[in-house]
Amino acid sequence: MAKKIIVIGSGAAGMSAASAARETDPEAEITVYTDDVDVAYSPCMIPWVLGGKSSWDGMIMHTPEWYAKERNITIRTATHVEAAAWDMPRGAPVVKNITVDGKTVEYDKLILATGGKVFIPPIAGTDLPGVFTIRTVKGGKEIEAYIKDRKKIVIAGAGVIGLELAYELVGAGKDVTVIEMMDQVIPRIADKDMADPIQAYLESIGVKFVMKAPVQAVNGNGKVESVSSLGVDYPCDAVIFATGVRANTDLAMMIGLDIGQLGALVAAPTLQAYKNGRLVPDVYVCGDVMQCQSAVYPGPTMSQLGSSAVREGRVAGINAAGGDAKFGPVVAPWVSVIGDMQIAGTGMSLGLASWYGAKLASGKASGYSRARYFPGHKELTVKLMADAATHRLVGAQIISGEDATGRINWITSAVLNGMTAEEFIVQAENAYCPPTSMVRDVVLQAADELVRNLQ
Amino acid sequence: MAKKIIVIGSGAAGMSAASAARETDPEAEITVYTDDVDVAYSPCMIPWVLGGKSSWDGMIMHTPEWYAKERNITIRTATHVEAAAWDMPRGAPVVKNITVDGKTVEYDKLILATGGKVFIPPIAGTDLPGVFTIRTVKGGKEIEAYIKDRKKIVIAGAGVIGLELAYELVGAGKDVTVIEMMDQVIPRIADKDMADPIQAYLESIGVKFVMKAPVQAVNGNGKVESVSSLGVDYPCDAVIFATGVRANTDLAMMIGLDIGQLGALVAAPTLQAYKNGRLVPDVYVCGDVMQCQSAVYPGPTMSQLGSSAVREGRVAGINAAGGDAKFGPVVAPWVSVIGDMQIAGTGMSLGLASWYGAKLASGKASGYSRARYFPGHKELTVKLMADAATHRLVGAQIISGEDATGRINWITSAVLNGMTAEEFIVQAENAYCPPTSMVRDVVLQAADELVRNLQ
Repeated sequence: MAKKIIVIGSGAAGMSAASAARETDPEAEITVYTDDVDVAYSPCMIPWVLGGKSSWDGMIMHTPEWYAKERNITIRTATHVEAAAWDMPRGAPVVKNITVDGKTVEYDKLILATGGKVFIPPIAGTDLPGVFTIRTVKGGKEIEAYIKDRKKIVIAGAGVIGLELAYELVGAGKDVTVIEMMDQVIPRIADKDMADPIQAYLESIGVKFVMKAPVQAVNGNGKVESVSSLGVDYPCDAVIFATGVRANTDLAMMIGLDIGQLGALVAAPTLQAYKNGRLVPDVYVCGDVMQCQSAVYPGPTMSQLGSSAVREGRVAGINAAGGDAKFGPVVAPWVSVIGDMQIAGTGMSLGLASWYGAKLASGKASGYSRARYFPGHKELTVKLMADAATHRLVGAQIISGEDATGRINWITSAVLNGMTAEEFIVQAENAYCPPTSMVRDVVLQAADELVRNLQ
Repeated sequence: MAKKIIVIGSGAAGMSAASAARETDPEAEITVYTDDVDVAYSPCMIPWVLGGKSSWDGMIMHTPEWYAKERNITIRTATHVEAAAWDMPRGAPVVKNITVDGKTVEYDKLILATGGKVFIPPIAGTDLPGVFTIRTVKGGKEIEAYIKDRKKIVIAGAGVIGLELAYELVGAGKDVTVIEMMDQVIPRIADKDMADPIQAYLESIGVKFVMKAPVQAVNGNGKVESVSSLGVDYPCDAVIFATGVRANTDLAMMIGLDIGQLGALVAAPTLQAYKNGRLVPDVYVCGDVMQCQSAVYPGPTMSQLGSSAVREGRVAGINAAGGDAKFGPVVAPWVSVIGDMQIAGTGMSLGLASWYGAKLASGKASGYSRARYFPGHKELTVKLMADAATHRLVGAQIISGEDATGRINWITSAVLNGMTAEEFIVQAENAYCPPTSMVRDVVLQAADELVRNLQ
C-alpha cells in the first residue's frame, strides 16, 4: 500500500519536503495542509513586490494545480490543522493522526513544517486595522491595499526584513520610521560597527530611525493613528511588525514533542523529532519551527533562513519517504540587499558568541569588490572573527556594494571545516579577474589583520 | 647591519615580496631589479585597456618613486640581470651575488620572481613587425599603436587572456580570428562542455575561430601579412601570441636551482629553493617561475595566477626578511570575464585530472544567479567534480552572467578541506536573498546531481 505522508506547512521547508519525498518514493500519497492560500513562494521577496520591483503573481513559482499535475502532490490550502497526535500506548497500536477542520486524518509519516510566527509584543492596539506583519503573499497584498493612499508607515524592528522593507517603501514614496529596541540595526546577528553604515545609508535616503525604543502601544480610533514609545507619540497610518520570528510549536506541543532551550523543536540529524527524550520514528520536523546544532560551538542555534528551510525540508522529505539523508550542524550564512548596499554574515557575531560564553578576536579590512583600477568597483569591508583561544574561524560579516554572497559562502565553508585563522592565511585562495575581485581579495586582507590581532 | 634583500622581477610576486619584506623588517635594504619600465600593475588588465575600458596610467597603481618614498624600496627599472649565483664552496665563504648590467651586486637574501615567458612556437616569421605577446604595459602600448589603423588581428591561443582580448578587440572595431591548436577554447583548465558556450558567445559577437589548428608560419614582406595553419593562409595585420606562459628559469639555471617535472622551480613551504636536493637557505622563489603542490592529488601543479603570485610573494618576502610564513598546496581557482559571460574553475578539470591518472565523476546543474522571479537574473551553470573512488570533491567549473567568483572560491574552500560530495550535501550552506541567489544555490543542485552520479 502506498505510504501516506502528510506535510503541515507550505513554506520553503514544507514544499521542499513534499517534493523530496516524491523524488524518493514515486508511489507515496503526499498531502500538504496549509492555512495559506498561496504556496511555493519566498516570503523574503515581499519587500521588493511592495517596492514595485516584481508582482505578486511573479513571485509565486507554482500553483497547487501544478503540484497535483507535475508532482502528484495534493495541497489543501486554507485549511486549519487543529490537532496532531503521535503516541505509542502500551499494548495498543501506535496513534498517528491529525485533525483538519474537524476531520481526523491518519498518516504513516508526518512532516511538521509549521514555520514561525512573527512576534508581536503584548501591547495595546495591535488588533487595530492598519497593524500588519510581513509573512505571506496574502498579508502582503493587504499591506499594499491599505497603504496605497496612506503615507506614514512605522516599521517595528530593524532586522533585515524591516530594513529591506523600509528601503522599498521610501522608494515607493512613503514616509518611513523604523522603531528598534536595541541601539543598532540588525541586532544580534550583525555587530554594531558593521550595522551602523547600513543605518547611515538608509538615513541618507530618508528613513527615520528611533533607536533603543520599544513600541509600547498602537493608538487609534478604529484604525492606526500613532504608536507610542518611551512617552513619545509617532503619528502614522500603518504599523508593520518585523520583530522577528518565534517557532510555531502549537501542534508539536499537542503531540508532546521535545522543545529545546531556544523554544523550538529538537531534531535528530535525520530530522526526526523527540518525545520525552526518545526518538519519534514517524514525525519529522523542518524549517523555522526547529532549532539546529551550531557548527561553530557545541550547542543549539536558530537558523530561520529560507536556505536552511529548503535543506531541512529535503532531508525530512527524503527520510520520511524511506530514503537516507542527514542534516548537519549549521554556520547559518545570511545576506540582505538594501538598495545599493549588501550586508552579509555567517557564524558568530559578537552578540551570538556571547551566548556561548566565547571570546572572539576580529580582523577588519576595507578595499574593493573589483580591482581598484577597474571601472565600477564598489567599496567592500570584511570583518573576520576567530575564537581567541583556539584561533578557529567562527564568523564573518561583510558590507559591500556587490558580491557579498559568494564571499560569505566561501568563509562559511572555512568556518564549517574548522580552519584556524593561521591555516586560512596559508591555504585560502581567491580567483582573480580585474572585473570581479582584487588580486588579493579583501577577505584575505581581513585574515591578515585577524592573525595580527590574535598574536 | 641592515639585511640586503634583492628581488628580481617586478610583477605581482616580486612587488608583493618587496612590500611584505618591508613590513617584516623596517631596516632591511630592499632593491627590486626589473627589465620592465613600469611596475605595480596587473597584466590581466591589459585586454580591457586595449578595449578602451581603462587607461595605461589608470592600470598602474604606483610608480617607483612612490615605492621609494612610501616603502623605502628601491626599484631599478629597465635593468638586465645577466647572472645570479649562490654557492657554498668547501672551506670558503658562501657566494651570494647577481650581475646587473655588467656590475656585481652582493645579497643576503635573494627573491627570484622572474615570472614567465609567453611561449612562441619556433616557426618562421615571429620576428616580423606586427608580432606581439601580451605581458607588459610597454608591450600593450606597442600593440595599441600598431593596430590603431589596422583592422585584421589574429590571436594565437584560445586561453582566457586570448578570449578576453578577442572580445575587447571586436568591441574596438577590429576583425578578430582566434587560432587554437586544441578542439576547444580554454583547453586544459576548462572542460569542453563548459568552454563551448563561451566560444559560441564570442562567435555570436563576431569573433572567428579556427580550431585544431597550430599556427605554422607568420608571413609577410617587412611586416605581418598573414599566418599559415594547416595549409591555409589567414591574411592579417598583426598576430598576438597568447599561447601560455612557461616559467622563466634562466637565472635559476645559472644558480643551479632544482627544476621540477613541470619545468618550473621547486620550492619548500617556506618558498626557499633547492639545489641538488638540498634546501638553499638564502634564495626564495615566487610567482610564475615556480611550481606548486596540488591540494587535490599528491604531486606538483602550476598555478600561474596573479592571485597565487601575490600570496607567494608575501610568503617569500616575509621569510626573506626573517619572519615566518608558509605557502600551502593549491587548488588554484581562476575566473575570466568575457563580455557578458563569466567562466570560472577550480581544482581539477577532466584534462588536469588525467595527468594524475584520476577518474572523476561529475554533476552539472543549471539555474540562475538570483531568484528566478527576481528581475535581472542571469543563467548560471555549475559543474562539480569528485574523485570516483574517494568521492572527495576535486574541482568545479562555472559559467554565469554574474557572480561566478564567489561561488568558485566557496567550492575551492570545500575542495581544500577534503570534503566529499556526500559531506557537501549534508553540510554546505548558502546565504540567500532574492537579488543575489536562489534559495538553494545552483552549486548545491550540482552537488545533488554529483551524488546521484557517484551512486
